[in-house]
Amino acid sequence: MKTTQHSGSITFAKGFLATGVACGIKKNGKSDLAVIYSESPATAAAVFTVNQVKAAPVLLSAKRIAQGSARVVVVNAGNANSCTGKRGMDDAVKTAALVGHHLGLPEKDILVASTGVIGQYLPMDKIQAGVEQACRHLTVEGGEEASRAILTTDTFTKEYSITIQLGGKPVRLGGMAKGSGMIHPNMATLLGFITTDAAIAKEPLKQALANAVDKSFHCITVDGDTSTNDMVLALANGRAGNKAVTSLASADGAKFQEALTKVCQELARRVVLDGEGATKFIQLTVKNAPSFETARACAMSIAKSSLFKTAMFGMDANWGRILCALGNAPVELQPGKVDVAFGNLVVAKGGAAVNFSEAKALGLLKRKEVEVTVDLHLGKHEAVVFTSDLSYDYVKINASYRS
Amino acid sequence: MKTTQHSGSITFAKGFLATGVACGIKKNGKSDLAVIYSESPATAAAVFTVNQVKAAPVLLSAKRIAQGSARVVVVNAGNANSCTGKRGMDDAVKTAALVGHHLGLPEKDILVASTGVIGQYLPMDKIQAGVEQACRHLTVEGGEEASRAILTTDTFTKEYSITIQLGGKPVRLGGMAKGSGMIHPNMATLLGFITTDAAIAKEPLKQALANAVDKSFHCITVDGDTSTNDMVLALANGRAGNKAVTSLASADGAKFQEALTKVCQELARRVVLDGEGATKFIQLTVKNAPSFETARACAMSIAKSSLFKTAMFGMDANWGRILCALGNAPVELQPGKVDVAFGNLVVAKGGAAVNFSEAKALGLLKRKEVEVTVDLHLGKHEAVVFTSDLSYDYVKINASYRS
Repeated sequence: MKTTQHSGSITFAKGFLATGVACGIKKNGKSDLAVIYSESPATAAAVFTVNQVKAAPVLLSAKRIAQGSARVVVVNAGNANSCTGKRGMDDAVKTAALVGHHLGLPEKDILVASTGVIGQYLPMDKIQAGVEQACRHLTVEGGEEASRAILTTDTFTKEYSITIQLGGKPVRLGGMAKGSGMIHPNMATLLGFITTDAAIAKEPLKQALANAVDKSFHCITVDGDTSTNDMVLALANGRAGNKAVTSLASADGAKFQEALTKVCQELARRVVLDGEGATKFIQLTVKNAPSFETARACAMSIAKSSLFKTAMFGMDANWGRILCALGNAPVELQPGKVDVAFGNLVVAKGGAAVNFSEAKALGLLKRKEVEVTVDLHLGKHEAVVFTSDLSYDYVKINASYRS
Repeated sequence: MKTTQHSGSITFAKGFLATGVACGIKKNGKSDLAVIYSESPATAAAVFTVNQVKAAPVLLSAKRIAQGSARVVVVNAGNANSCTGKRGMDDAVKTAALVGHHLGLPEKDILVASTGVIGQYLPMDKIQAGVEQACRHLTVEGGEEASRAILTTDTFTKEYSITIQLGGKPVRLGGMAKGSGMIHPNMATLLGFITTDAAIAKEPLKQALANAVDKSFHCITVDGDTSTNDMVLALANGRAGNKAVTSLASADGAKFQEALTKVCQELARRVVLDGEGATKFIQLTVKNAPSFETARACAMSIAKSSLFKTAMFGMDANWGRILCALGNAPVELQPGKVDVAFGNLVVAKGGAAVNFSEAKALGLLKRKEVEVTVDLHLGKHEAVVFTSDLSYDYVKINASYRS
C-alpha cells in the first residue's frame, strides 16, 4: 500500500472542521464537548455497542445513521446519558436540535455520542451554552482540541491519519478515539470517529467500517466490560475528487479498506496503550487456528483473564494461566497440542512444561511491550489481540470513578 | 427441615477418618497432603471442571468415579499437576497406587485431587513420603488438619457439617473446601469434599450432588476464571443405618437433597468470604426472571464485572455499572423495566436514575456484607449469587503467585 503518513487529526481530510470546548460537564473544568462538522454532505456509517442496555445517544444515532449520510457529530464527555430513560432520549434529541439550529442543518444530519458516568441526567443548560460556543468556533485547527474534549480517564489523546492515492488523487483519512476503561470487543466505552474526503458509496463504507472494526476495536480488551455507549463513526464527504468507490472488491475499494483498517488499528492500539492503570502493552497472537473467529475467541479468553493480566503486571512467567484461560474459550481445542511462547522464548510445548530460562523470561516480561504467542496446531488462521495488564492503579481508578 | 448443626469436619459422619501432613510441596512448610478414608465401601459422586484443559487428577478421578463408588481421596496442595502431559498422568496414577498399597485397597477405589501452581511436575519423592506418613495417621481427629492441608492462598479453613433424621436415624454430613483464587462457576480452582454416613444409591447421590453444586458452587465467582483442577466429591458409606435412599423424589430423598445443598452452600459462602484480597462479601439477587438459569446468568454477568467489583471495593453507589454489566448478560432483557437496590435502598427504577440518599447508600456499602437486588420484572424466578469485591490485594496476591 502506497501511503504517506501524517500526524493529522479528525480535520486532516478536506472539508472537515472541528472544535472542543469546556462547558462544565467535567468537574475539573477540562474540555468536554466536541463537534465534528463536514462542510458538505457526507456518506456515513457506524458500528454500535452490542450491550442490551444502550444509552440514548446510541439509540438516536443508530436510528439516524440508517439513512447512510450525516453532516455533524456532537460528542460530550463526563456524562454518558445512559440509563436515563425518556428524559435521556429527549436530552439527546435536544442536543442535536441545538446543533442543527446553530449550523442551519436539519436534525436528521446530526449524530450524538456521549461518554462518562452512567445514570445521571445531562446538564442541559451547560450543554446548550457549550453547543452554541462550539458551533461558533469550528476550524481546521480545532481537531486537536476536539480529541481532548472526548476523553474521560484517558491520559493522552488518540489520533491517527493517513493519505492514500485513489485513481491518482490523494485521499485523506483522519481519526480520533477515546477509551481507557470498560474496553472490550464490541465497542466498550470506546468512541472512535474517522473522517475521510474519499468519495465512497454508503454500502461499501458501511462494509469497510464493519471489517475494519472487526480487525481493530473488536480485537482489544482492557477489562472485559462492554459499555452502553460505544460507537465508531465514519464520515466520507468526497472532497478528494476521486472516482467514487462503489465496491470493496475493486482495486480502489481494497486500498480504501486497507487504509481504514490501518486507521482503526492504530487508534485501537493507542486505546490499549492508555488502558486504565496499564503498565504493559500486551500483544497476544493465537496462530494455526481453524478460523480467524476461533483464533480471536481464544486470544480474547486469555486477554480478559484477570489471573493472566495480574501475572503480566507481576512479570511472572506463569504460562499455566494462559493454558487455563485458553481452556475456557468457547472453541474446541486439543490442549495436548498447544505451544506457548513469550517473545521467541518457548515456555510450553504440547500443552506441557518445557525447561526455559526464568532469567530470560523475566527479561522479556520486564519490557513495556510484551508479546505472547499461542500455537493451537489446529489450522492456518491467526488473530492478534491487544490488551493491558491489571495493576493496582486499575483498582484505584475504578474504585471511586464517580467522585 | 429438622436438623442439628455441629461444627464438625470431614470426619463428622460415622466411619470416616482423615489426616493432613506436610511433605514439602508447599515452600512454607505447611501441611500440603490430605487423605480422606472411608472404613467401609462408599457410594461416590463428583462434579468436575468444565475447563477444556483438565489436570491429570481430574481426568483420573473422572474415569474412576464412573463406577459410582470409592474409598479414599488423596489431595495435594501447592502443585496442580496440570499441563503436565503423560508424566503428570503417570504421577497421578502412582500417587493413588501408593495410597492403595499402604491401605491395602485396589487402585480403582482411590480418587486424586490437586491444587496449586499449573505446569510443574509433582515432586514424587515428597509425595511418596507424604502418602506413607498420611496413611499411618488416619484418625477421626484428623479432619481439621486435612482441611488445612488442602488450602493454597486461602486464609482460613472451610468446614461445615449437619445432622438430619432419616427414618428416625441420625444421618451426618460433613464437608470441607478450599478456594480463594480462580473461583468461578463450574468449579474454578475449587475443591470440595463431602462425606456422609447416609445410605444412598449411586444414582440419587450423583443427582443430589449435581443439584446441590448448581445452587452453591456454581453460584459464586471471585475472578471469573474457571480452573483446570476443580472438583466436588461426595462419599456416602451407609453407616447411619437408614433405609437406603433410592430416589430423590421420596421424603427421605428430599431431606437428603436439602441437607447436601445446605452443606455445599455454606462451604461456597466461606469460599467467597475468603476470596483473594476480598474486603466485602456481596450477595447479588436477581429476581423476577423467566427462569433460574436466566436469573443466574444475569447475576453472574454483574458478579464478574471488574468495574462493578472495584466500585464495591470503593463503596461507590455506581449502579450504572450494574445495569451495564446486566446488559452484557446472554439473556434477553427489557432494560427499561429493571430496578436496582442496595439493601432496601432503591437506586434505580425502570432502568433509570431515582433520587436516593448518597449518605444512606454509603452507609450500606460500608458494611462488610453488601446486598444488591436486581428486579427484572420479566418472570417469577430468582437466583442468589455470592461474590467479592476487587481490591488492591487481589492484584498483589496474583501478581507473583508462583514465587
